[in-house]
Amino acid sequence: MSFDVEQVRKDFPILSRQVNGRPLVYLDNGASAQKPRQVIEAITRAYEGEYANVHRGLHFLSNLATDNYERVRAIIARFLNAPREDEVIFTSGATEAINLVSYGWAAPNLRPGDEIVLSVMEHHANIVPWNFLRERQGVVLKWVAPEPDGSLPPEKVLAAVGPKTRLIAVTHMSNVTGTVVDIGAIARGTHVPVLADGSQASVHMPVDLKTLGVDFYCITGHKLYGPSGSGAIWIRADRQAEMRPFMGGGDMIRTVTLDEVTYADPPLKFEAGTPGIVNQIGLGAALEYMMDLGMENIAAHERSLRDHARDRLRSLNWLQVQGDAPDKGAIFSMTMQGAHAHDISTILDKRGIAVRAGTHCAMPLMDFYGVTASARASFGMYNTHAEVDALIDGLGFCRELFA
Amino acid sequence: MSFDVEQVRKDFPILSRQVNGRPLVYLDNGASAQKPRQVIEAITRAYEGEYANVHRGLHFLSNLATDNYERVRAIIARFLNAPREDEVIFTSGATEAINLVSYGWAAPNLRPGDEIVLSVMEHHANIVPWNFLRERQGVVLKWVAPEPDGSLPPEKVLAAVGPKTRLIAVTHMSNVTGTVVDIGAIARGTHVPVLADGSQASVHMPVDLKTLGVDFYCITGHKLYGPSGSGAIWIRADRQAEMRPFMGGGDMIRTVTLDEVTYADPPLKFEAGTPGIVNQIGLGAALEYMMDLGMENIAAHERSLRDHARDRLRSLNWLQVQGDAPDKGAIFSMTMQGAHAHDISTILDKRGIAVRAGTHCAMPLMDFYGVTASARASFGMYNTHAEVDALIDGLGFCRELFA
Repeated sequence: MSFDVEQVRKDFPILSRQVNGRPLVYLDNGASAQKPRQVIEAITRAYEGEYANVHRGLHFLSNLATDNYERVRAIIARFLNAPREDEVIFTSGATEAINLVSYGWAAPNLRPGDEIVLSVMEHHANIVPWNFLRERQGVVLKWVAPEPDGSLPPEKVLAAVGPKTRLIAVTHMSNVTGTVVDIGAIARGTHVPVLADGSQASVHMPVDLKTLGVDFYCITGHKLYGPSGSGAIWIRADRQAEMRPFMGGGDMIRTVTLDEVTYADPPLKFEAGTPGIVNQIGLGAALEYMMDLGMENIAAHERSLRDHARDRLRSLNWLQVQGDAPDKGAIFSMTMQGAHAHDISTILDKRGIAVRAGTHCAMPLMDFYGVTASARASFGMYNTHAEVDALIDGLGFCRELFA
Repeated sequence: MSFDVEQVRKDFPILSRQVNGRPLVYLDNGASAQKPRQVIEAITRAYEGEYANVHRGLHFLSNLATDNYERVRAIIARFLNAPREDEVIFTSGATEAINLVSYGWAAPNLRPGDEIVLSVMEHHANIVPWNFLRERQGVVLKWVAPEPDGSLPPEKVLAAVGPKTRLIAVTHMSNVTGTVVDIGAIARGTHVPVLADGSQASVHMPVDLKTLGVDFYCITGHKLYGPSGSGAIWIRADRQAEMRPFMGGGDMIRTVTLDEVTYADPPLKFEAGTPGIVNQIGLGAALEYMMDLGMENIAAHERSLRDHARDRLRSLNWLQVQGDAPDKGAIFSMTMQGAHAHDISTILDKRGIAVRAGTHCAMPLMDFYGVTASARASFGMYNTHAEVDALIDGLGFCRELFA
């Protein structure tokens, strides 16, 4: 199937709206993506005619909802080319996923002085759960800084691994600079377990868990053109076997008596309570939509957006773009002397252009680049070259106002 | 506003569908409730035209989504008559809510030998998070059994409180027997903190946190005619001050450096990562729908359903109903000699009647009643006397088949 961005845009109702009297130019995909009608319709269909709680019912609607929901596990496995479908654990997003690993795998297994290697460009979601272990049980966080261009050489990460290293937790793609990390090379270079935060990468490029060789890989649905509160983490079965449960509640138990609780087998062991049934059904629709378009086609389109944006941004000598790794994704964080990032965002918004300003949940990377905040334009599959040009025009207008 | 059940039914698209060639009679509300079009439309409206990530943006859509989302905090506060809006913490449901209290409040504050008082009729969601503390740090669980009729006298709960009791965690309404617990009397009778699981009660009766006097009160959206993955817990500010964060990630921090993390003030401190934005917006629509109908009106309608169902079920001397507390809600769990609960559910399903069979995530209560499973008919605001009659007819048919 060929990729026609104008056809894709027609599937996203919100893209035809206006903001401040101008057509919406949505460049805040790094924070959250818009949803195609296929996802919205899947949600509506579920609630209007196919809804009940899952797993524990025997009646028609419960069985139907269970089928629709459990089917998404297979879709996620296919999307990530995961070795086994039952290694996919549903979560409300990447944050819950990484907390599951921190509380379920690391907390019971790591001892004081044990080390976790992190990159300086991690999102807070891949920092704070590990910081808990530092605060609460004496685990040591070892930081690996990127190169000035934002790239993170695998050998630099591997050089930080020592005899006390128990986990390497790195992003697969930076949400600030768009840097793609070669997590496969990291995983091949060590026996230490590797957690990859796929929140950004899975949106923009094909992911092949069978060849990457990592132990933990999480995705978040709302960035994948899917619903709020959807997501998953793939955890290799041998790591799952090392985990205790995280949240307690219904569905994750085998037996409960006054004296003892025994737990269900994975993946249910890690999925407490009524899950985000319809959210996950919507995520299934989103991933099928992306796979129908073809992840290679989406990646190629976004490479072309990246190249166009990079060329045009490079021509603006009054603008600083943080990071410029060769194979980066189409995410650009920038600062302008004399203009605060918040001002840039506000000015662009008046022209219908949505970019994010702030620290992008990556304060250590902000410190690394010596900036307190930046304006970030992050592209998705429905963005166009014309929208790149609109951004550049808008930045020029900011320059005129503030410089 | 008067309550017209036929008008209400028209708002729920799924109620007009057929199951196995018969009109759907949905009596599985205890597991999850159906959604009115007002909720489905709120979800669609958000995704089609008002969606972006919240809190961290400065552009139009982000501000709009933030307003729509944060507005729900006030709606929940009004729904529960909570003293303060900022004491409402968004969660993905009651399970995450109770785990938040277990991990965030109890785990850092309870010592080996400290006691938590639970009732035998708790849902697993209000057992397993406390069992973790028993397994991991030597906390003792003290159990209070209900009376044979399913009622739970407050004085019986208070009698279990001793000098080492640090928490009382009880349901406000049993999901198996419909028993309503006088949690206000429990809270008034002790200085020990009280957590009430409002997953069922909040659906069926007005809740007034200003007079109940409990410390923690959780609700779950999917039972409140709201979306998957929505919910909240109200926690009194002084208890929040005793809590450490539960999940780590974006939005719940103040600063992150390589050496230290500091945390945001509540409620954000307890809300890590991109929240269930549109789920909570849908929950707001559900609660406004219920408040427009009037919780007293809903409760009165369901009392009339309960009375009719109780009268008719009592006339079936071949049926055992577990629990019959005087002011119980319209939830009936039952067993029939010679017929397994699963068979009852399957037979009823052939007639379009959805009831749940199993242990209802309440195995200790099953043990208390000496049954391995029961069939449960749980009513909601849209059910009718005619549906009670359809259930009775269906049970009679089961009796003919199996007796």
